[in-house]
Amino acid sequence: MGSVKTIQLSKSIYEDTDAEANELREYLKEKGVFLVNIMSSPGAGKTTTLISLINRLSKHFRIGVMEADIDSDVDAVKIADKTGCKSVQLHTGGMCHLDAAMTRQGLDALGIDDLDLVFLENVGNLVCPAEFDTGATMSMTILSVSEGDDKPLKYPLIYQKCDLVLINKIDAMPYFTFNLDRCIANIKMRNGNSTIIPISAKTGENMSEVEGYFINKTISGGKCKNA
Amino acid sequence: MGSVKTIQLSKSIYEDTDAEANELREYLKEKGVFLVNIMSSPGAGKTTTLISLINRLSKHFRIGVMEADIDSDVDAVKIADKTGCKSVQLHTGGMCHLDAAMTRQGLDALGIDDLDLVFLENVGNLVCPAEFDTGATMSMTILSVSEGDDKPLKYPLIYQKCDLVLINKIDAMPYFTFNLDRCIANIKMRNGNSTIIPISAKTGENMSEVEGYFINKTISGGKCKNA
Repeated sequence: MGSVKTIQLSKSIYEDTDAEANELREYLKEKGVFLVNIMSSPGAGKTTTLISLINRLSKHFRIGVMEADIDSDVDAVKIADKTGCKSVQLHTGGMCHLDAAMTRQGLDALGIDDLDLVFLENVGNLVCPAEFDTGATMSMTILSVSEGDDKPLKYPLIYQKCDLVLINKIDAMPYFTFNLDRCIANIKMRNGNSTIIPISAKTGENMSEVEGYFINKTISGGKCKNA
Repeated sequence: MGSVKTIQLSKSIYEDTDAEANELREYLKEKGVFLVNIMSSPGAGKTTTLISLINRLSKHFRIGVMEADIDSDVDAVKIADKTGCKSVQLHTGGMCHLDAAMTRQGLDALGIDDLDLVFLENVGNLVCPAEFDTGATMSMTILSVSEGDDKPLKYPLIYQKCDLVLINKIDAMPYFTFNLDRCIANIKMRNGNSTIIPISAKTGENMSEVEGYFINKTISGGKCKNA
């Protein structure tokens, strides 16, 4: 079993979190690192999706992962075990989200000099993480079939703010009352520009499309190009 | 389709939210009303469980429901349609939780003089709702099989604070990697005194046990008795 570093984050001392986020984005650009903020409900499949995705993308990029949680290090250990990539566990000290200052603490602990692509798995929560700019290059939300197709109606901000929405666990669709067309329409109502890809991280269905999305977004002559 | 009142809640002006919560509990006791705070991840099945439960409990109690959400009124409409009981939709104005002052605004809008039992469906979120005492008589958390058995490791506070945990969607257990014994052990690690009942709100499995739990907790000669 891989061992992972656990970092206890301290609360931001900055008042102007937007400025802090923009500064972090500039810093990442200079470093040539593309940072993806992943958000979802608890249990929507962030870690499983990430493992599937990293195993596809690791031939293209040098990848690192930051796993944020209130407690436990189960996710960071799982990532290290199943992908072998560099991974740190961030403990938020009870906080329900990450901001840019906390994200920077995580990046410093991870060490990004040798990385092209970093995934930040935010705290499982559809409300608070959407309210704070982490400084990431882009944001992605995972909605799982078992949660229901009405989530974009109830949690508008997170769907407004993200560039990519993965609808996960589509292999379990026959088991739940879930209307894919209605779900897509609900997401589009919040943000007409977001890219939506229905997937199953478990069976691998459509994961090649997600792989292609990230290659198109980031690669330029084998090196990361920040959007 | 039933119509429901939608209430826009305003933020608490009180500094001492614990005192406010204790005052609300005293007020409910005087009124002979038992208030249940229901918490879970988005999509764990709060509303479906509530509909199944109300249809069993309505022969024993006069029941009212407060549905809290950031946006939309889909849940309150569903409750009114499927149970016929008195229901209001509370909009939190982007807030990720309810406190006692907000709960009291909801109770005032609902009107509780003719009620014995009130359910408050909190915002779908495993982090913030656990940090605020709503003033409810008891708290219940729903964890669904599709979320995974590790949730009590990652979201400790909500499991520490609740009296009753329902493990929902057990009909879907063959479909997911979920270890029921491990899940129960993880919940017990957070709170050894909580009652845990595995259910399927969809098929009705074990719902009679939940019905019995609430009858034992609340009834005394046909009238509510606050614990």
